[in-house]
Amino acid sequence: MELIKTAREMRDWATKQKQLGKTIGFVPTMGYLHPGHLSLVEKAKSQNDLVVLSIFVNPMQFGPQEDFSVYPRNIKQDSLLAEKAGVDLIFYPGTEEIYPQYPPLTSVEVKGITEELCGKSRPGHFTGVATIVTKLLNIVQPRRAYFGQKDYQQYLVIRQLASDLNLSTFIEMAPIIREEDGLAMSSRNAYLSPTEREQALALNQALEICRRLYLGGEKEVANLIKAIKERLLQEPSLKIDYVEIRKAADLGPLATINISAIVAIAAYLGKTRLIDNLLLEVE
Amino acid sequence: MELIKTAREMRDWATKQKQLGKTIGFVPTMGYLHPGHLSLVEKAKSQNDLVVLSIFVNPMQFGPQEDFSVYPRNIKQDSLLAEKAGVDLIFYPGTEEIYPQYPPLTSVEVKGITEELCGKSRPGHFTGVATIVTKLLNIVQPRRAYFGQKDYQQYLVIRQLASDLNLSTFIEMAPIIREEDGLAMSSRNAYLSPTEREQALALNQALEICRRLYLGGEKEVANLIKAIKERLLQEPSLKIDYVEIRKAADLGPLATINISAIVAIAAYLGKTRLIDNLLLEVE
Repeated sequence: MELIKTAREMRDWATKQKQLGKTIGFVPTMGYLHPGHLSLVEKAKSQNDLVVLSIFVNPMQFGPQEDFSVYPRNIKQDSLLAEKAGVDLIFYPGTEEIYPQYPPLTSVEVKGITEELCGKSRPGHFTGVATIVTKLLNIVQPRRAYFGQKDYQQYLVIRQLASDLNLSTFIEMAPIIREEDGLAMSSRNAYLSPTEREQALALNQALEICRRLYLGGEKEVANLIKAIKERLLQEPSLKIDYVEIRKAADLGPLATINISAIVAIAAYLGKTRLIDNLLLEVE
Repeated sequence: MELIKTAREMRDWATKQKQLGKTIGFVPTMGYLHPGHLSLVEKAKSQNDLVVLSIFVNPMQFGPQEDFSVYPRNIKQDSLLAEKAGVDLIFYPGTEEIYPQYPPLTSVEVKGITEELCGKSRPGHFTGVATIVTKLLNIVQPRRAYFGQKDYQQYLVIRQLASDLNLSTFIEMAPIIREEDGLAMSSRNAYLSPTEREQALALNQALEICRRLYLGGEKEVANLIKAIKERLLQEPSLKIDYVEIRKAADLGPLATINISAIVAIAAYLGKTRLIDNLLLEVE
């Protein structure tokens, strides 16, 4: 497995591989890899000749009060996990390599879908995401790039910008990977105290209650949201950021589930912000 | 010479040529070609294996009160001129091909250099320029793209976004091409009445006065601007939008010319807005 730290070397490597007729699958991450990331690598391996994984904790997608400085980092362990998973190359640039000037003068803005859900609680977050992903896609030039369903809104934003900016990369999504007890895998789970870790199960359990009600015939969004909130509020330390059920295609509002929907939760446990979601597909 | 109207065919053609080892030089235009555009084609031909010229009147870079609907168009004549100049392919997409949804959700924003000069008079203009150029560069995938010095601020904006978004295209600039009497070539010159056409010479003449004063030893920006305005105000129908002398590198303010500078004029003759400029290079 190779490790490259500069954009120029990364681009040259990608250009060379493409000239050899190889397709590149790309998994952009902020590191501290867990089985969620590795499932993206596995999917990328199955669909491309080569897999590039990037590790870059992107300051531009963190708010001033957020956890950029303490976000967990462990390049040594990440390298071992990536190599074992069959990654061909880790792109591991420093902040100055990506942002010679910070903040950068140029940003990629996506309207509409960025204004809902996490966009409300995290102003500027999706501009940071859209900008870094555009940059990374231009450097790595992959055939396909892989994103987890856990960040469903992020997936929609990236799909939109890739289409709007005529990027040649296909944007792929892979399912949420969970711990055995149901907690969605996240690098931020490392922040949780044992008590918070216990209470964090409420997110997935609330989504499961929603799923059962829906499969039992309940299609009214208001009733489903009420049931989710009831479960979440059983946890004394849990603070709801939002519980929303929206159109899966564009996060538009929805009163009755007659079209594919995304059920999305964001909640705080202490200082840790967790998200989880459930796709309800209507054919 | 080929003519392609869809982004998919354009991208496929470019990908094929690159696989054959050919370099592409790209000249993006809004059509109504004049010798200024053709000088860009000539430069592109001298530095690349193939030349692609695009013709797209980009609605996103026109303000609501501006001349989008009346902007001159003549694809037939443009094709003849392009073919004669040695263009290999014209990319001529329709508005729906470029913007399936209008306005698009995604835009490319460049701060700083876009806020001065034309950015003040034309809010949103450079966001429209930055967005369309990003799209076109992603579709055409050129080694080099060519822009005229007449739109000097546009050149700076595009150079900035290409660097910030890690595009692999080199951004090149070519000198202003002028009519025999000195008027900078522009598709918008077609709007001028004979009287306005006469008065429009004031822009270049004012710049020439500035150049002579500068070469004669005058380095004070305030004095040079005063001399330019004096010449411009001799024309009864001419309305000054701005006369500015800024740092050539980033349009930063400048009191004394001790570093390369751009002398930039924008003025109205009737409803027609004309721009012109002069680079004063300091080694």
